[in-house]
Amino acid sequence: MPRPEHVLTLSCPNRPGIVAAVATTIFEQGGNIREAQQYDDVESRRFFARITLDHPENALDVPALRTGLEAVAERFSMQWTLRDRAQKRKVVVLVSKFDHCLADILYRWRLGELPMELVGVISNHPRETYQHLDFADVPFHHLPVTKSTKMEQEAEVWRVIRESGAELVILARYMQVLSDGLAAKLAGRCINIHHSFLPGFKGARPYHQAHARGVKLIGATAHFVTADLDEGPIIEQDVERISHNDTPDDLVRQGRDIERRVLSRALLWQLEDRILLNGARTVVFRD
Amino acid sequence: MPRPEHVLTLSCPNRPGIVAAVATTIFEQGGNIREAQQYDDVESRRFFARITLDHPENALDVPALRTGLEAVAERFSMQWTLRDRAQKRKVVVLVSKFDHCLADILYRWRLGELPMELVGVISNHPRETYQHLDFADVPFHHLPVTKSTKMEQEAEVWRVIRESGAELVILARYMQVLSDGLAAKLAGRCINIHHSFLPGFKGARPYHQAHARGVKLIGATAHFVTADLDEGPIIEQDVERISHNDTPDDLVRQGRDIERRVLSRALLWQLEDRILLNGARTVVFRD
Amino acid sequence: MPRPEHVLTLSCPNRPGIVAAVATTIFEQGGNIREAQQYDDVESRRFFARITLDHPENALDVPALRTGLEAVAERFSMQWTLRDRAQKRKVVVLVSKFDHCLADILYRWRLGELPMELVGVISNHPRETYQHLDFADVPFHHLPVTKSTKMEQEAEVWRVIRESGAELVILARYMQVLSDGLAAKLAGRCINIHHSFLPGFKGARPYHQAHARGVKLIGATAHFVTADLDEGPIIEQDVERISHNDTPDDLVRQGRDIERRVLSRALLWQLEDRILLNGARTVVFRD
Amino acid sequence: MPRPEHVLTLSCPNRPGIVAAVATTIFEQGGNIREAQQYDDVESRRFFARITLDHPENALDVPALRTGLEAVAERFSMQWTLRDRAQKRKVVVLVSKFDHCLADILYRWRLGELPMELVGVISNHPRETYQHLDFADVPFHHLPVTKSTKMEQEAEVWRVIRESGAELVILARYMQVLSDGLAAKLAGRCINIHHSFLPGFKGARPYHQAHARGVKLIGATAHFVTADLDEGPIIEQDVERISHNDTPDDLVRQGRDIERRVLSRALLWQLEDRILLNGARTVVFRD
Repeated sequence: MPRPEHVLTLSCPNRPGIVAAVATTIFEQGGNIREAQQYDDVESRRFFARITLDHPENALDVPALRTGLEAVAERFSMQWTLRDRAQKRKVVVLVSKFDHCLADILYRWRLGELPMELVGVISNHPRETYQHLDFADVPFHHLPVTKSTKMEQEAEVWRVIRESGAELVILARYMQVLSDGLAAKLAGRCINIHHSFLPGFKGARPYHQAHARGVKLIGATAHFVTADLDEGPIIEQDVERISHNDTPDDLVRQGRDIERRVLSRALLWQLEDRILLNGARTVVFRD
Repeated sequence: MPRPEHVLTLSCPNRPGIVAAVATTIFEQGGNIREAQQYDDVESRRFFARITLDHPENALDVPALRTGLEAVAERFSMQWTLRDRAQKRKVVVLVSKFDHCLADILYRWRLGELPMELVGVISNHPRETYQHLDFADVPFHHLPVTKSTKMEQEAEVWRVIRESGAELVILARYMQVLSDGLAAKLAGRCINIHHSFLPGFKGARPYHQAHARGVKLIGATAHFVTADLDEGPIIEQDVERISHNDTPDDLVRQGRDIERRVLSRALLWQLEDRILLNGARTVVFRD
Repeated sequence: MPRPEHVLTLSCPNRPGIVAAVATTIFEQGGNIREAQQYDDVESRRFFARITLDHPENALDVPALRTGLEAVAERFSMQWTLRDRAQKRKVVVLVSKFDHCLADILYRWRLGELPMELVGVISNHPRETYQHLDFADVPFHHLPVTKSTKMEQEAEVWRVIRESGAELVILARYMQVLSDGLAAKLAGRCINIHHSFLPGFKGARPYHQAHARGVKLIGATAHFVTADLDEGPIIEQDVERISHNDTPDDLVRQGRDIERRVLSRALLWQLEDRILLNGARTVVFRD
Repeated sequence: MPRPEHVLTLSCPNRPGIVAAVATTIFEQGGNIREAQQYDDVESRRFFARITLDHPENALDVPALRTGLEAVAERFSMQWTLRDRAQKRKVVVLVSKFDHCLADILYRWRLGELPMELVGVISNHPRETYQHLDFADVPFHHLPVTKSTKMEQEAEVWRVIRESGAELVILARYMQVLSDGLAAKLAGRCINIHHSFLPGFKGARPYHQAHARGVKLIGATAHFVTADLDEGPIIEQDVERISHNDTPDDLVRQGRDIERRVLSRALLWQLEDRILLNGARTVVFRD
């Protein structure tokens, strides 16, 4: 059995003494630092860190640690989160017709690769679309949408997210653009997979755009959703080599593999508190 | 000693019998097909091929082969080139202050990796800029340029290219935009290295643009030069992973490695007749 | 609807005239060459080719083509196969407890990425092991095995393969070593995925071996099964970067992704007749 | 101008309070932590860290910091090094006939990519072998070797290393096996580039071995030299895809590129104090 662990993330203006103060607070409350990653942005002079701690002999006094961190945060104008790794995040997945990302997430979740509680799948297509996928006990919500019902549908989407208690929303090839209003409500906790190597080929049919331009690599991008379409902070990207021989359909097929692995990495990193926002960019403390 | 070899490239509208006609012609004139690659573009219904042939016992009758191919070309509306691999292409390299691509080309050329005759280096900076580079007997031309002398300078560039007999011009981080006129004269035989993964980050300071956007991979693109800046047919691209930790200067440093290898691959492929133009795209018959 | 297509593969000692003879035969029987790849092994002086052909206006006379190719084969001591792409290969998959490769194959098959007829799944574990996988109508065979029953179990495995008409057998993390006898019967049509970058880390627990040696990349290898364990002709390999931070369990998890994509590529290439044996090595005509 | 910086590396048995103690000591002596990376080996329960610090307003009291760290080291049985980044390491490079790695190191050094003082080049071939390379003022030592003079030659090699004050020795395709005695003297400060993806293809002519085995990727490995040939702790590895089409000579050519970049990365990381030994493996705190 893994020992109990907590993950601490923090960011603040950089000045001497932050690490000493945080590490001393952890030590005094009985915690043992297992991993620590930090980053000092030379432009913004802002400091970011992710620390995992365990507690030999269960010595950690969590409420006291929170109180101690509160005092440090006050002193350094620090934003911070402390999460018990045993408390899994609740996640809702939105999907449209193409289910390769959803299928991949389900498979990894079942295998134990993704430490999350799946509390809902929302689609604008009916359950039969995914008849070969085993959703176990995860509630499925069919919320069809047309141009004229978009407002009502989004209200339903938002209700499902809220009622399920989801902390994280994944757009797993959900082919509807979120309204500014919904995007704002989900700021910082909604991840989309875009099927191009951004900033190249924004908008619709990126594989066809890529084919027309004759690029030699195609890619996919996982990013936080913002009101500004395809402009949100990038979390992860990857590419694969293609050739003149590949038709747009070949790119779509090859792209599925890229999308699956890019989205699953971004999801895992978010579940492990590895991603911190730094303005329009992200700090990703990879393993 | 390698046996004498010729490379044949061809393209034409696709219809049955092309391969049979070409292969039979080669066989009848004493040639032996060593490699053959072909591509049939389903959209344009255009056929492309690259064939290398050798001649056991020196049996190949080259003039007869040319006559035979001329007849086949007539029949199939075929464009073709036949090159004796022993005849090395003459190449001129243009460079500005940053010499990493030039240094790499010189090194590979000296090692025998690039089958070409280097007939000139042109720079808008003086010879001393490259004092650590050994140019052997390759003529160096210092052609400084200002906004007001651009026309005259380009006339000089063109004169050097013409008088050197260069069949291929390489812009190895030459930081001047060619005029439409010069670009037109060099159509199909001038390769540029752009320091971004096109179509992302066109224009100036692409590594700074990439840093600002927060992408997770940076890249470089080798393409044929056209009047339309950064829009020419792409020959080769590659990328490397970066992290939030990398400053724009780090990207510049890492980018040098990507640029060197992307440009040297494109150059080698052009020297080996592996690149055929297909409208705004390229067919690249890689090894 | 795609037009009818055939795939021709061939190999023979290299001498002038092969391509001319084959291409002329195809042309005369009404075929149109769409793709052609060939390779001339300079060591063995052996020639390999893969040609796809279609038939505008259904003009192809297949029996006449076979007769014509037979004559060419006689003349050039050529081995060849001609396959109608509409005739899908029958495939049996063997699996043990870890089902990530099987799940991936099922998913790609359902999506239409793998042009095959799945005629059986054989496992030494019971059906319940894979309760989350939808096998559709594919017969499942539970054939448990112990040291003392191995001979009988292999006889059963062979019977299922034979009765199902399988032309291809995939060991999708089947953790039993085939006997020399069964390996011999399946020569050239049985593909295994080994969870290391061969020839490194043969044998058991390769990820633990890799961890102990401190390598910086791990990999997987798809190869044809031969009596000589982990020594069969390699079809495809791939790797991923790891770090000192990764435990053997992390390598196992990361390895699953590599194994899935390496095996699915090898399987696809076999289904598309892209793999030819060349002694202890393979010629793979990639897309 | 970059601000003055120090790099601290440390390792010790893991127990609570290490980070707090080290960070507090740094803070009290006027240092500001800029980067910190750490790793806790779950098997050996050993803790490793690399910390870079700068000193706003030049407040750092280095002797006091050393005294403070000495006390912490005592308490935690900690091994540590503190290096002023302005003090460049002295490096000697050994080379044989193939100079691609040497040429690459020279070029990067001149460009400022490698923060080192090059204090000698040793070769068993004469200076003329490298006539196209500009060694600037770096002393060149021609130390030829035969089977019967190996002992004497190694004594000379050792003398040059010692007299030059070299802290680091790079075997940049030095094709002589070091004796156990010399290997022992250079333990932990001699890096070799092996032209295969270890542990595959140890020993001589690895590219020919790779070709014979039919692998689909070739690689190179940078490792610390130990008495046990090709078994030293691995620092970095990389690979490239090859095909059936590549001859052993092609692999040699392609391998040069892999060797250059693998060795230059390992060298840079060593110069930046990013590599810590962990038994037979390395901890590499990459950027």
